[in-house]
Amino acid sequence: MKIIIVGATGTIGKHVVKALESAHEIVKVGSKSGDFQVDISSLESIESLFKQVGPFDALISAAGDAHFGPLPQMTDADFRKGVDSKLMGQVNLVLIGQKYINAKGSFTLTSGSLAQDPIVYGAAVSTINGALNGFVKGAAIELENGVRINAIAPGVVEESPAYFPYFPGDIPVEMHRVAQAYYKSVMGGQTGQVYFVG
Amino acid sequence: MKIIIVGATGTIGKHVVKALESAHEIVKVGSKSGDFQVDISSLESIESLFKQVGPFDALISAAGDAHFGPLPQMTDADFRKGVDSKLMGQVNLVLIGQKYINAKGSFTLTSGSLAQDPIVYGAAVSTINGALNGFVKGAAIELENGVRINAIAPGVVEESPAYFPYFPGDIPVEMHRVAQAYYKSVMGGQTGQVYFVG
Repeated sequence: MKIIIVGATGTIGKHVVKALESAHEIVKVGSKSGDFQVDISSLESIESLFKQVGPFDALISAAGDAHFGPLPQMTDADFRKGVDSKLMGQVNLVLIGQKYINAKGSFTLTSGSLAQDPIVYGAAVSTINGALNGFVKGAAIELENGVRINAIAPGVVEESPAYFPYFPGDIPVEMHRVAQAYYKSVMGGQTGQVYFVG
Repeated sequence: MKIIIVGATGTIGKHVVKALESAHEIVKVGSKSGDFQVDISSLESIESLFKQVGPFDALISAAGDAHFGPLPQMTDADFRKGVDSKLMGQVNLVLIGQKYINAKGSFTLTSGSLAQDPIVYGAAVSTINGALNGFVKGAAIELENGVRINAIAPGVVEESPAYFPYFPGDIPVEMHRVAQAYYKSVMGGQTGQVYFVG
């Protein structure tokens, strides 16, 4: 299987690569690193990526930023960082990628636990994660040629210790458990699902 | 209680007005009608609304548009109609309104059933609804001075017959049941909740 991994060298992405690379052709994509570079906030950059890579069987996105900060001071501009990057970046990978993906292929996006399990400073992230969870449910029933789509919603992961103080009482998720959720999405048959990994 | 209703003359809004007007001071707001006008896609227009209305106890939003159409042809621009209107319009009513609302006040936003129960042509709407459901959960734990926030997620409503063919098998929701969900949000004590009205 030819699998594009956007965010391949990131905290989560590198473990997803490890879980899949022995048996598949992995196309590593990053904002600055990898086999190909993409700016997911740019439609032209996404279109150019797919033209360069050509037909593929699966796309995994573990990419996108969002604003983290106190609600009383949060502005429209803060909020739109996540809208433009983590939300519309990943949505556009699908809207554009659906023209290039092979039949029976799959898209796997990354949301996160905060849409269901909010934390202080996380209102914009809860919003973006909820949006992505809604998107995969809506898109799953319309993607053509048997193409599937799921989202992975991990809690705070063990290799992001800087975030631990913001997730009081949450037990950081082991990286291999997170990677297996992506593996399940790509290799399984489900669609329109959100896999919570807590 | 002084209650701002944005979208007061809309399909849902007029029933919410009816449920609350006998016992409360209602400030009716519309894009073109009502006591005050607002363009929720404009930060300046929202700020101006709150400056004119002054302190208030509750804000209900039953406003905002989103794109409805087939996923294979959907573009970033289509998708952003809902992001700018139904999502960021309602989010900005809260981000800005939190500076004007009285202690123990409440915000009630409108999402919809499609984030959980998708229909063909509804992928962008599922996304926006999921975003709003995530936002109220995240915002609820940070709003200050006892201010609450909830979302109402109605199915297709009985006074929108043009949409019935897109919701096969769904029984249209009676307007008084929808209005009561808004009433519950304003008059009750809950926060961070999504009231599904199906």
